[in-house]
Order: sequence, then structure tokens, then C-alpha cells
Amino acid sequence: MMGLTSPADPLTSRAALLKAASDLMIERGVIDISLSEIGRRARLNTALVKYYFGGKSGLMLALVRDVLGQALVQMQGLVTMDLDPVTKLKLHIKGVINVYFRYPYVNRLIHAMLLDPVLGEEVAKTISRPLAETQRRLVEDGVRAGLLKPIDPMLFYFIILGACDHLFFSQHALRHAFGVHEIDDQLRRDYTDTLLDMVLNGILLPQGKTG
Amino acid sequence: MMGLTSPADPLTSRAALLKAASDLMIERGVIDISLSEIGRRARLNTALVKYYFGGKSGLMLALVRDVLGQALVQMQGLVTMDLDPVTKLKLHIKGVINVYFRYPYVNRLIHAMLLDPVLGEEVAKTISRPLAETQRRLVEDGVRAGLLKPIDPMLFYFIILGACDHLFFSQHALRHAFGVHEIDDQLRRDYTDTLLDMVLNGILLPQGKTG
Repeated sequence: MMGLTSPADPLTSRAALLKAASDLMIERGVIDISLSEIGRRARLNTALVKYYFGGKSGLMLALVRDVLGQALVQMQGLVTMDLDPVTKLKLHIKGVINVYFRYPYVNRLIHAMLLDPVLGEEVAKTISRPLAETQRRLVEDGVRAGLLKPIDPMLFYFIILGACDHLFFSQHALRHAFGVHEIDDQLRRDYTDTLLDMVLNGILLPQGKTG
Repeated sequence: MMGLTSPADPLTSRAALLKAASDLMIERGVIDISLSEIGRRARLNTALVKYYFGGKSGLMLALVRDVLGQALVQMQGLVTMDLDPVTKLKLHIKGVINVYFRYPYVNRLIHAMLLDPVLGEEVAKTISRPLAETQRRLVEDGVRAGLLKPIDPMLFYFIILGACDHLFFSQHALRHAFGVHEIDDQLRRDYTDTLLDMVLNGILLPQGKTG
């Protein structure tokens, strides 16, 4: 009985530490949070971070895998689904935006990790490369079907990820330059629709194209 | 005579400190550099940072203004030039990419500053808002001329800045996920051309648009 209700219950404590780190990064809009802040928020001894994750880097890696693992699996599943390639690409881009909407810190966290030689290779192997590979297949399927222009998948990767992320990365610019204090669901939808229309159709009107 | 050759010559020392900070951020790919590192690189006493800039924040603010000031003036000049609105918008986007190409740290530095209540207002007033205003006018001129679709300038701002910045922000992903170790001039040009074509024309082929 004791094990089920104890605050040191492994699953609960592990999840509580991950949630505390995630919540703190969302609230503060920065990825620099300390172990002691995480421990205080989770009401757990920070020694448990070392126990479960080997340290703060391990906790952050576990968090990124938690947050993106499910999304990556869904995105990889898209590739083989019986849908037309353009619909797949739209769903992919929506999925990327939804991840950044829920976890606005995740892109910055990944980039901080890519700076570290050991952690960087791990993040590249489990996240960046699978994502790039999924996108490459989605784009190439669309090109092969005669629906999309040939486009370099690497350039596409940086353009799309940057465009998807920037509203969330730049929440402070949103506040300071546009007076918008919160990214609500309506803004997320408007951003998604505008980006999708731009990526697929461009912003030129027919008379612009001849000009 | 002494004043002209002294290492404490005001203009030279001030510029040397700014250049040292800029060079260090480019070389390391991070914006977290210490005053003592800046002093060592410039071969100057760090007390001069306090003297010229009031401290490290002041130095970073001066650097951002140095780097972006000229570019912002040129972009504002575009608005009134006798060119068609689509050409202006293209030149604007090229200009943004060129700034990030030369100073890949500048977008992250601005966002770190926007987090600070006092510095944030200063950066917003001198950089973010003028840039947003310039873009708004360029886009609205294009819409008014019947060349561009109506588009929310705020959403356009985040999509374009994110897309322009991400190749440079994500240099570690470029290395880890694509094996590309340097952004050379050819890659900058390819990125610019691909982004401009996507923004203006989209990636759908005519048969994709009907599908």
C-alpha cells in the first residue's frame, strides 16, 4: 500500500520532475531553470533527478523525448497513410505548430542540446534526423505525384521549422511590438492557416505573377 | 600624438569591444559570453565596458543597434523607393537574410533582451516596432496595388523572420542532421531563392491546386 501513495513512487516522481521542468519553462519563457527550482516545484528532492535521469541534461533529454516522441511517431505514420501527398504535408505542418504551441520551449531546448557534443548526437539521432527524413519523404512523394515543385528538402526543413516556431519563440516580440499578450487557440489557427496558404500557394495574386 | 596611438583611444576601444563581442558570439554559436572574455579578446580592461556602455547589457544593446541600425534605415528607405511593391518585398526579405548571415547571433540576442523589462522596451522601440512597421507598409502597398493577397502583417512578420533566421539559428542542426558544417555564400543564395519562391508563388504545381 505504501508504495502506491508514497511521493517517492518511481513513475509519479519521475513524471512530476518532468512536468515541473516543462511548466517552469513555459511560465518563464526561458529554458534556463535550475535543478533546485525543478525540485521545489515538484516538491521532491533534487537527488531524484540524478537517480532517475543521471542529472539535469538527462532530465532535459527525457523531456524532449517525452514531448516529441509521440508527435514524431504520428508524423512518421503519416508517410504511409492513404492520403494525397498535399494533405499529408498540411497535416505535418499543423502537427509541428501544435507541438510548439503546447511546448513553446522545445525548439530552443533542442538547439541548446545540439550545442553539447554528446547530447547533440543523441538529439540528432532521435529527433532531428528522423524529422528531416519524414519531411523529405513527404516532399518527395508530392513531387513524384506531380503536385509539388521540386524543392531541396534541407532548405524546406529550415524554412518550415523556423516559420512554425517563430511565433512561439518570439512571444516577447509579440508582446513588445504588437501588444499581444497571449497565443490563444484562435491565433494558433490563424497562424497555421496563413502559413499553410503561403507555403502552398504563395502570396502573389495572378497579376503579380506576370509583373 | 599620444591620444592617436593610445590603446585607450575612445573610438577604437569602443569599436574593439563591440567587435570582440560580435566575433566571440559568431565563433561559439552562443550569446552567453562573459565580460572577461570580451576584454581578453579586445585586449582591453573590462572596466572600459562600464565606462563606454554602462555594463554588459549596454554593450549588447549598442552592438544590436550597430548591426541593425544601418540595415533598418535601408529597409525603411525601400518603402519610398520608385520600385514595384513585389520587388521591394523581395529586397526586404533578402536584406533580412543577409543580416542574419553576417550576424547569426542577432535574432537570439534581441530575444534575450526582450526578456528584460527595461532593455526589452528599448529594443522594441528601436528595432522590433520599426521593422514591423516597415514590413506592414511593404505588404499593404502590394495589396493595394492588387499584386499581393491580403495578409495579416503580424502573422507575416513572424513567418518571414522565423523562416529567414532558422538556417542561421539552427547551424547545429544543419551540422548534426545534414552534415553541413558551414553556411557559405552559395547556401545563403539558395536559401534566399527557395524562400522567396515559396513565399511569393508557393510550392504547389497547378495540378496540385485543383486537387
